[in-house]
Amino acid sequence: MREKIRIGVDAMGGDFAPKNEIEGALLALDYFKAKGDNSVEICLYGVEEKIRKVSKENNFNLTNLKIVDSPDVIDMHDDPTEILKTKKNSSLYKGLTAVKQKEMEGFVSGGNTGATLATSTVVLGRIPGVSRPTIAAFFPTINPRPTLLLDVGATVDHKSRFLYEFAIMGSIYYKTVYKIENPTVALLNVGEEDSKGTDVLRETYSMLKESNLNFAGNMEGRDILKGSADVIVCDGYVGNVILKFAESFKNVLKTKIKDFASKSVSNKVKAGMALPALKGVFKEFDYQEYGGVPILGVNGISIVGHGSSSAIAVQNMIIRAKELVEFGLVQSIEQSISINSKSN
Amino acid sequence: MREKIRIGVDAMGGDFAPKNEIEGALLALDYFKAKGDNSVEICLYGVEEKIRKVSKENNFNLTNLKIVDSPDVIDMHDDPTEILKTKKNSSLYKGLTAVKQKEMEGFVSGGNTGATLATSTVVLGRIPGVSRPTIAAFFPTINPRPTLLLDVGATVDHKSRFLYEFAIMGSIYYKTVYKIENPTVALLNVGEEDSKGTDVLRETYSMLKESNLNFAGNMEGRDILKGSADVIVCDGYVGNVILKFAESFKNVLKTKIKDFASKSVSNKVKAGMALPALKGVFKEFDYQEYGGVPILGVNGISIVGHGSSSAIAVQNMIIRAKELVEFGLVQSIEQSISINSKSN
Repeated sequence: MREKIRIGVDAMGGDFAPKNEIEGALLALDYFKAKGDNSVEICLYGVEEKIRKVSKENNFNLTNLKIVDSPDVIDMHDDPTEILKTKKNSSLYKGLTAVKQKEMEGFVSGGNTGATLATSTVVLGRIPGVSRPTIAAFFPTINPRPTLLLDVGATVDHKSRFLYEFAIMGSIYYKTVYKIENPTVALLNVGEEDSKGTDVLRETYSMLKESNLNFAGNMEGRDILKGSADVIVCDGYVGNVILKFAESFKNVLKTKIKDFASKSVSNKVKAGMALPALKGVFKEFDYQEYGGVPILGVNGISIVGHGSSSAIAVQNMIIRAKELVEFGLVQSIEQSISINSKSN
Repeated sequence: MREKIRIGVDAMGGDFAPKNEIEGALLALDYFKAKGDNSVEICLYGVEEKIRKVSKENNFNLTNLKIVDSPDVIDMHDDPTEILKTKKNSSLYKGLTAVKQKEMEGFVSGGNTGATLATSTVVLGRIPGVSRPTIAAFFPTINPRPTLLLDVGATVDHKSRFLYEFAIMGSIYYKTVYKIENPTVALLNVGEEDSKGTDVLRETYSMLKESNLNFAGNMEGRDILKGSADVIVCDGYVGNVILKFAESFKNVLKTKIKDFASKSVSNKVKAGMALPALKGVFKEFDYQEYGGVPILGVNGISIVGHGSSSAIAVQNMIIRAKELVEFGLVQSIEQSISINSKSN
């Protein structure tokens, strides 16, 4: 018999919690069932009374879900350090503690990213050899596969050792998701020559060249969407700014097309036809489709999604969590960090 | 009688030189003439023989343009330090030297940005009080006015004093171009709270808060295209990456729309209508329209444009140069740096 994979869901994370979270968990169960896969058990962490009430209102059948009552409620304004001190009975803290204690194999949350990052780091601890956990994001490209950019905001400090570890973790993660042997890894810089950039970037360049990664050299801002490399590494200040810049592009384009439409009847017709075409295109820029991102470098599977995660997004996060457990993400990172730390 | 404003044009800079450069100079003369403005004299710096040959082929009338023969030719692979040593008879070096010696009031070039930056810095020198010259770029927003982002690649080093000076120079430049009294200035960061970011960002935040600028606090990547502030300041690593990322967006969108079109006849019709709508929108994302950018912080007017500058872009660079001379950009920066250095 296959071993069970137990995934915890933060039923209180996300702007539409617990509705989307419960629905997402049920969708995930359906998905696995349709594949004839009975290995996954899902457990909802949250205020039990609320979970039951919302389920009743929406005709959700809770029979196949476990519920762990977690009465403390985190709100968006809670400081991460406060949560760690005063909200040990929150869904986030209890769910991650269950992962730590091997009662769960993974945990997914659409709650506050900062709080999830901090709580995961403290409760799960870091993988031996990892200096800083990191969060990565996929960007659509003109190729079939997206580019993974990291760090996108977990660590703003600009240090070569951090960037080097991000490269190792990003490479392993890309390998897990896209099942390719040796993803290309590049360093985000202001030009391609190895002399470019800050001292830290030049130092990182040398370290990556010496590593066992498939290092493709320096790349520029335009290479992200071109898909010039599978994994592109930068510090969290740059990565966070690009991620938020990219996410805002859609709205600006929409506004500009509306302005264009308002100028003439002929423009209005053109714009009306343009929007459905763009809708298809922008679906790829929808980060929810990717089903959240793991906090790489912590000693356990913890996945964080957008606050506005839909039920489908929650479903995708659970599927992703199962995949990462099966692949052995944590063990692979530990191994790769250990091998690559000997040379550097 | 009004004093003459003499603008030098690098006839050898740019991918289509000298054709677009000569044509752009003639367009600028027409533009000023149509406004009844006889104050501007334009001088072409380049290989005279080539300028005369290309003008003959294209029926360009050189009567109202001066030509200064500059036989040394810079190519895209020339190292900036080499140019400074061995190519003193190049259009770039001679034109900038003319500005230094008050024979010209400004110089415009569509040549290599790195070479123009280095040569401008060495030949013109820095404005007293300026640590590092900077290059800024306009981004279209959902508002009528664009956002000015700087630095976009002149200085990758992340130091609070540099960022602070960029803010001062950006504010003055925005004021010149958009004729508004007190442009808002923000610091690009990973969150809005003043505790966010690196030590350097927190230090810069305090300095900007104490300055006489219209400081609007920290802003995030999404605020650039939103137009949340007139001027947004960051280090050259971040700025360069965002600029190149934004420029690549158009091509990715085009590729994605073509993929969409190829899927069905109905998609093809929709996409065919979408493209003209997008063309209008992307015109605003065309950095050429803005007519190049000045190298801020050097002791003279030096404007750099895209290598692929069209004749219209060259015309706009000349018009912009004249505007900056009239406004007294250099003097205004010197004054503002001096006032704001007392408090910091």
